[in-house]
Amino acid sequence: MDGSHHILSVLVENKFGVLSRIAGLFSRRGYNIYSLAVSPTEDPRYSRMTVVVDGDSAPIEQVTKQLNKLIPVIRISELTADQAVERELMLVTVKVDGSFRSQVTELASIFEAKILDVGYEAMTLMVAGAPEKLDAMTELLAPYEIVELQRTGRIALAKLSRESSKLKLVKNKGA
Amino acid sequence: MDGSHHILSVLVENKFGVLSRIAGLFSRRGYNIYSLAVSPTEDPRYSRMTVVVDGDSAPIEQVTKQLNKLIPVIRISELTADQAVERELMLVTVKVDGSFRSQVTELASIFEAKILDVGYEAMTLMVAGAPEKLDAMTELLAPYEIVELQRTGRIALAKLSRESSKLKLVKNKGA
Repeated sequence: MDGSHHILSVLVENKFGVLSRIAGLFSRRGYNIYSLAVSPTEDPRYSRMTVVVDGDSAPIEQVTKQLNKLIPVIRISELTADQAVERELMLVTVKVDGSFRSQVTELASIFEAKILDVGYEAMTLMVAGAPEKLDAMTELLAPYEIVELQRTGRIALAKLSRESSKLKLVKNKGA
Repeated sequence: MDGSHHILSVLVENKFGVLSRIAGLFSRRGYNIYSLAVSPTEDPRYSRMTVVVDGDSAPIEQVTKQLNKLIPVIRISELTADQAVERELMLVTVKVDGSFRSQVTELASIFEAKILDVGYEAMTLMVAGAPEKLDAMTELLAPYEIVELQRTGRIALAKLSRESSKLKLVKNKGA
């Protein structure tokens, strides 16, 4: 998936069937969901869904309007790729015996991956980062035979502002 | 969520409306979905869904049987908490100006979190780990005012076997 996508972050009441209603809404309206992450928030009454949809789908305003009509939807925020910090987690088990273990360990270190588990014939790595980083690591691990691979799908937060009218550093005071 | 939960990893065809059908099935059968992560696999024809359901829900066999009947479902594997390595990713933006920045940086280092972004009045951190680690970090960050927090929901792989009949180390050969 390239840069042309939308990220919707939807705060919903943690009620029965909400997920299925929201997924149904996307599907009926013809949106192609690329990835989805749903997890409770710091307040257990609410869950947050991060939905990544293809930029070529129907205009995103249509679906946000529909989502806003659903009672359990509390808040929706939309981010485009250039406004967002997007990250993803991957767990991958690679088939390696003793002879290739050092090569995989080296790749893990290059990608700042963590070795979670080692068996006689396999290793499990965890790596977090931008989706492109995870893609690159997957490609480099492929020759060693990937036994199992899971990715969480993306979550995203807005980039922080570096402009602030409120803040004047102390040195300006004396100038 | 304590140890009493089930983790279902469902490999599905990457087709329109699959997510909504599967979410609907869980909801109709009365399963309480705790977290859900959906993402394409290394083969773009398939997506993988990791569903965490409450252990007190109806027996998990009921839902796996129903899932298996759905055409786009390729494979289901079930893991219990003690068989699995479970990990999750969190992005969190904390409101901190210069005076508290060093305290938050210190917490980040303790939790092996990465600082993704810094603004005049806020910082964005990324941390990957077991769900309990993410809970602990959230609690310790709470006093600094959390502006936004997102978690991916869990993904899980089976723990690796440390038993192998195939492998006899070289030293045994000589013994």
